[in-house]
Amino acid sequence: MRQKIRMGMIGGGRNAFIGAVHRMAANLDGLIELCCGALSSNPENAKISGRALFLPENRIYGSYEEMIEKERNLPEHERMQFVSIVTPNHKHFEPAMLALSNGFHVLIDKPVAFSLAEAKALQQKVKETGLQLCLTHTYSGYPMVKQAKQMVANGDFGKIRKICVLYPQGWLSESTDDHNKQAAWRTDPSKSGISGCMGDIGTHAAHLAEYISGLKITKLCADLNIVVEGRKLDDDGNILLKFDNGANGILMASQIAAGEENALKISVYGEKGSLEWHQMDPNNLMVRWLDQPMQIYRTGNAYLLDIAKQNTRTPSGHPEGYLEAFANIYKNFALTLNALQNQEKPLPQHLDFPDIEDGVRGMAFIENVVASGKSDLKWHNFEI
Amino acid sequence: MRQKIRMGMIGGGRNAFIGAVHRMAANLDGLIELCCGALSSNPENAKISGRALFLPENRIYGSYEEMIEKERNLPEHERMQFVSIVTPNHKHFEPAMLALSNGFHVLIDKPVAFSLAEAKALQQKVKETGLQLCLTHTYSGYPMVKQAKQMVANGDFGKIRKICVLYPQGWLSESTDDHNKQAAWRTDPSKSGISGCMGDIGTHAAHLAEYISGLKITKLCADLNIVVEGRKLDDDGNILLKFDNGANGILMASQIAAGEENALKISVYGEKGSLEWHQMDPNNLMVRWLDQPMQIYRTGNAYLLDIAKQNTRTPSGHPEGYLEAFANIYKNFALTLNALQNQEKPLPQHLDFPDIEDGVRGMAFIENVVASGKSDLKWHNFEI
Amino acid sequence: MRQKIRMGMIGGGRNAFIGAVHRMAANLDGLIELCCGALSSNPENAKISGRALFLPENRIYGSYEEMIEKERNLPEHERMQFVSIVTPNHKHFEPAMLALSNGFHVLIDKPVAFSLAEAKALQQKVKETGLQLCLTHTYSGYPMVKQAKQMVANGDFGKIRKICVLYPQGWLSESTDDHNKQAAWRTDPSKSGISGCMGDIGTHAAHLAEYISGLKITKLCADLNIVVEGRKLDDDGNILLKFDNGANGILMASQIAAGEENALKISVYGEKGSLEWHQMDPNNLMVRWLDQPMQIYRTGNAYLLDIAKQNTRTPSGHPEGYLEAFANIYKNFALTLNALQNQEKPLPQHLDFPDIEDGVRGMAFIENVVASGKSDLKWHNFEI
Amino acid sequence: MRQKIRMGMIGGGRNAFIGAVHRMAANLDGLIELCCGALSSNPENAKISGRALFLPENRIYGSYEEMIEKERNLPEHERMQFVSIVTPNHKHFEPAMLALSNGFHVLIDKPVAFSLAEAKALQQKVKETGLQLCLTHTYSGYPMVKQAKQMVANGDFGKIRKICVLYPQGWLSESTDDHNKQAAWRTDPSKSGISGCMGDIGTHAAHLAEYISGLKITKLCADLNIVVEGRKLDDDGNILLKFDNGANGILMASQIAAGEENALKISVYGEKGSLEWHQMDPNNLMVRWLDQPMQIYRTGNAYLLDIAKQNTRTPSGHPEGYLEAFANIYKNFALTLNALQNQEKPLPQHLDFPDIEDGVRGMAFIENVVASGKSDLKWHNFEI
Repeated sequence: MRQKIRMGMIGGGRNAFIGAVHRMAANLDGLIELCCGALSSNPENAKISGRALFLPENRIYGSYEEMIEKERNLPEHERMQFVSIVTPNHKHFEPAMLALSNGFHVLIDKPVAFSLAEAKALQQKVKETGLQLCLTHTYSGYPMVKQAKQMVANGDFGKIRKICVLYPQGWLSESTDDHNKQAAWRTDPSKSGISGCMGDIGTHAAHLAEYISGLKITKLCADLNIVVEGRKLDDDGNILLKFDNGANGILMASQIAAGEENALKISVYGEKGSLEWHQMDPNNLMVRWLDQPMQIYRTGNAYLLDIAKQNTRTPSGHPEGYLEAFANIYKNFALTLNALQNQEKPLPQHLDFPDIEDGVRGMAFIENVVASGKSDLKWHNFEI
Repeated sequence: MRQKIRMGMIGGGRNAFIGAVHRMAANLDGLIELCCGALSSNPENAKISGRALFLPENRIYGSYEEMIEKERNLPEHERMQFVSIVTPNHKHFEPAMLALSNGFHVLIDKPVAFSLAEAKALQQKVKETGLQLCLTHTYSGYPMVKQAKQMVANGDFGKIRKICVLYPQGWLSESTDDHNKQAAWRTDPSKSGISGCMGDIGTHAAHLAEYISGLKITKLCADLNIVVEGRKLDDDGNILLKFDNGANGILMASQIAAGEENALKISVYGEKGSLEWHQMDPNNLMVRWLDQPMQIYRTGNAYLLDIAKQNTRTPSGHPEGYLEAFANIYKNFALTLNALQNQEKPLPQHLDFPDIEDGVRGMAFIENVVASGKSDLKWHNFEI
Repeated sequence: MRQKIRMGMIGGGRNAFIGAVHRMAANLDGLIELCCGALSSNPENAKISGRALFLPENRIYGSYEEMIEKERNLPEHERMQFVSIVTPNHKHFEPAMLALSNGFHVLIDKPVAFSLAEAKALQQKVKETGLQLCLTHTYSGYPMVKQAKQMVANGDFGKIRKICVLYPQGWLSESTDDHNKQAAWRTDPSKSGISGCMGDIGTHAAHLAEYISGLKITKLCADLNIVVEGRKLDDDGNILLKFDNGANGILMASQIAAGEENALKISVYGEKGSLEWHQMDPNNLMVRWLDQPMQIYRTGNAYLLDIAKQNTRTPSGHPEGYLEAFANIYKNFALTLNALQNQEKPLPQHLDFPDIEDGVRGMAFIENVVASGKSDLKWHNFEI
Repeated sequence: MRQKIRMGMIGGGRNAFIGAVHRMAANLDGLIELCCGALSSNPENAKISGRALFLPENRIYGSYEEMIEKERNLPEHERMQFVSIVTPNHKHFEPAMLALSNGFHVLIDKPVAFSLAEAKALQQKVKETGLQLCLTHTYSGYPMVKQAKQMVANGDFGKIRKICVLYPQGWLSESTDDHNKQAAWRTDPSKSGISGCMGDIGTHAAHLAEYISGLKITKLCADLNIVVEGRKLDDDGNILLKFDNGANGILMASQIAAGEENALKISVYGEKGSLEWHQMDPNNLMVRWLDQPMQIYRTGNAYLLDIAKQNTRTPSGHPEGYLEAFANIYKNFALTLNALQNQEKPLPQHLDFPDIEDGVRGMAFIENVVASGKSDLKWHNFEI
């Protein structure tokens, strides 16, 4: 790389949670420069937020439309190269389409859009433009998740037979949605979409299961629940799964699991052994065999597979966490964009970030889960 | 107690697994004496087994019928007081009925019978005779499970909203059933009944969920699987649950979860907090609150509730395990029988062992799960 | 075995802690029968205690002298075969000597005596009589400790270079000794001996380090502390160690580590790898290698070494605990006595219990530690 | 802040380990800009390294002398504000002195210098210039370490009685020093100083113990070892400690603990309870009380003290790690420099980074430990 990759941010002004996370992830490796932003729909807030991020005054924009318009007229070596969209779900689609239409790559916080239809339109646009779209399913950025995926792909566990993925959170246990900005939009159908919990975290769980196993969900049976009275969207759900190789599974996601923090965990069972990974203890990958002592694979060790090592920054015993996983997505995306601007073929390990195909599957997951939730029949075919 | 309680054992000869566990559990506290046995249907094996247990020759019987016949004719202070039935499922009902009919209390390894019909007949017989029937759902014997149950009953967590109980085992991951005596009968419908995995361990999971929560399953949606080719009974399954207070849940039980040992674990979520317990780490009860640090309640400490203390034998930091949990069931049963022989009212804490009501629910669980597994409809009403 | 091995107990009446533990350990496998007792120096208490244990009236004795005298005059197939001495330290020596002198084997709770001189006299007596003396250093009874010992002996870790053994307890954090019977004698030099904490638990830690490593302590540097004001004996200490192969080590034992239960843990480091074991999580043996994923060896699995399997009662995933470890010592001792009475050579795996040699080393440990604690010089040679 | 704080780096060229860590830590929060560097003493390497970091050609310097000379002549709003010194120990002192002499603040990787004399000279220079010197004792940057420190300071545990700090690593288990650049200089007395293991990681352990407890080491008794043949510096050691309030302790540090990664852990025992923290599981702070269930305080929760919250970036359940802890030091240092340039008083929470006083104590620790190691006397007074 000759220069840092230049990023413009849409959303993520003061007090936004996920915007700050995106910026730390983009900062960590020193490969990406935040060069401009449309950080808030409130112009005052946009200004204050932009200054706090040391943006030059003339690149603090009042709207994403203005940003895209002005940036595309800057000299090529100066203008932003991609937009990072960190707004609520209902504000993903339009800026993403506009950015793509104007030649900018796009990175979007998950879920990729408000509806499956929007996601498919984005997919079409990505195909037409040949631009990159990156989706931040953070949990697939952890090195031990990549180790797990590659061990499965290498056949270490034989055929996969069963997957259990549980994602309990407790932060929506009480009806305090009005007081909490993060809760407010996530529980509002006009901003979040047709699902609450399943859209917000169920999609992460489903993506993780498919990412590690290399399998696709083909059928599901969903029990969606509104546990806290007065909510309009599911805050909890349990799902039975079938995968395309015949494996079965369960997916549980809940935001009313009082006392739980962000306890995503997954077990994948094959013929010869199994793996278990907990997001809150991410540097340990537990591996169990039929007739051998359990093993714990740990981040940063020489015995790991290349894909795990390539996504690690420190020696073993120096814990890496959520921000490093998030930064792996940004880093791989940036290295891919760098290859493209040099008219090189991106390396496979740099293309290892969730993309619009994952985005479409995520939106399909939401729509299929909601449809199944309403059905009296046990099995619902996963359709896109 | 003036004398040890006298036990006769049915089944449990040499090489039987669970019989030896029952004897260690009965031995531990020195309250019970094995006085006779019909340890095997093979007379030679019965003899050898009885001698190895130091039984007097005249009380090593060739069949349970002989044992019950001869023992009832012994003087009251000498004859056995209860039978412990540790045979495979299809051989529970007849000896239990005969023992009850002849005035002997009964302890049976779970599940209580081969079918719901048998269980109901036993229930009727227990009612008629006024005798005690104890069922060894071991996991409810752990002190921290009792602590959990009582904390829920005390309302510490508010209304219970969700229960996740997972029971992965890996010992039937391969088709080696013929070579393994334990596996052989459990996978044979003529000995095990209409379910394999759900009958063997799913019933434990369901009992644990109902025991801790004080709730009853009212609806379920089961996905039962035969994963290892050639088996005739389910070796794996996933179930969605509804409970009588509106709570939802999931129950997973599998015997093909390669690499797992006996990893029963449960999470119970209430409005104010939640608890988590793992059978393989049984002296820790993890308790999480909405706004307080997570707590770990540990066996043997002064801060525990009485019911936990009454089922503990050593000071904190001295790990108690599976055999101690099993022994708690035997001990409470023995203390109940002692009270009855003294014409006293058994203490509530001594009546805290699984009984014929639990046995009937367990058999109903099996039958409802199997029916749901065959149904195309999502929800199946739990019926007894 | 044709008959159970017959045990007489000295001490261990009502309200005694360790006596009940010994009885449960002796009961568990059904190989040992408590046939008589001198359970208390208070005759009333002795009677009540004996009846509660279902002893026949004529074998509830008022003193150990009476017991030994009367028992030796009983027919051989009826009289006790060994005494179990569970009194405080200052009351170990005399009954042990008398029992040995009268042809009874002896089992003693640790430390074996009140002083090194007593221990050596016992050692001499054992040699003369050819009888067995068993010492209950419980922690060496755990199956994963035996696995660890054998892996070290097999050279799996190469030469051992370093041992860290920590034994924090918190139960004497406050000056409540008068109210607690267990605390009272342990902090009283006339009953406990010249050391408090190091005698009570430091000896366990030292025994565990030597047992697993197969090494002997040759030099030490002790910092003994009386932390709670008014105590007369150490309640805390830290020790630097050298072993006979040149390895170094640390041993920490404390009874004022507020909040700790019984948190004995050990790490043994060799050239090629290391092991770690925690008494409070006893079924896991953590094994680390230079270039391989960490392994966890777990009780009850087929991959374990014979010595671990021989000391395990249940399948993997069924946690075994402190009482099972204690029972392993009783079981191996009983099987040794059985071989001897059959004039057979005891099997090596049955002789795997701590004996008078360990008892002498334990008392020497106490005396050397106390001497080092008083010295201004860094290193003190371990002398017996 | 109006502008990012500008940093010049000394050392940290390609293939250096710790330089990259410093840059990621400096990048994370977007408050610091790497504006120039003297990244290698090899000019070719310096150039290549500088370009890889996107430095402008004219600010890639061939030596730190050149960098300091040229930067001080740049306009104030452009020139670097502090130097980050990430060279081996023997190359800390001269650049630090030169930077301070020319008005630049200094950040140094630990230990602060090659000898105590150098450290004292730096201390004197800091006093004279009024500039800031920050030392990267990373482990005190973790939020749960800060929580621990503040709970101790608040008196939650009463008087502190005992501290155990263990720091086992295994990466120098074999004599491969020549092939490993990191190992090579650390085991070379001409580059590392008079101690290997104790200088490299023992200082971290000692700093952590003093940081959390608020106590100072007053006496020590050290056993330093060269375990791998042929080494010239200690690669292992065990130390007995006394603190200024009378508390005792142990400190173990080893680089030959085969299989261990970076397993720094500490227990601090007070009259009323105790805490335990493991660097490899940094988001959990285990807290034990005399009569209450154990608690686990976890990063990111509302119940934590302010100082922990101020050093956390993500919500609970999103693990933070080593780089975030490291970044806390950089962030607090940058916020302090920002206050100073605005002629404001730095906030106490921003001054919470290790400084030259810690650096002097660290060097004194090394010299006292080495002196004690050579002494035949048990106790050596800690002298500065």
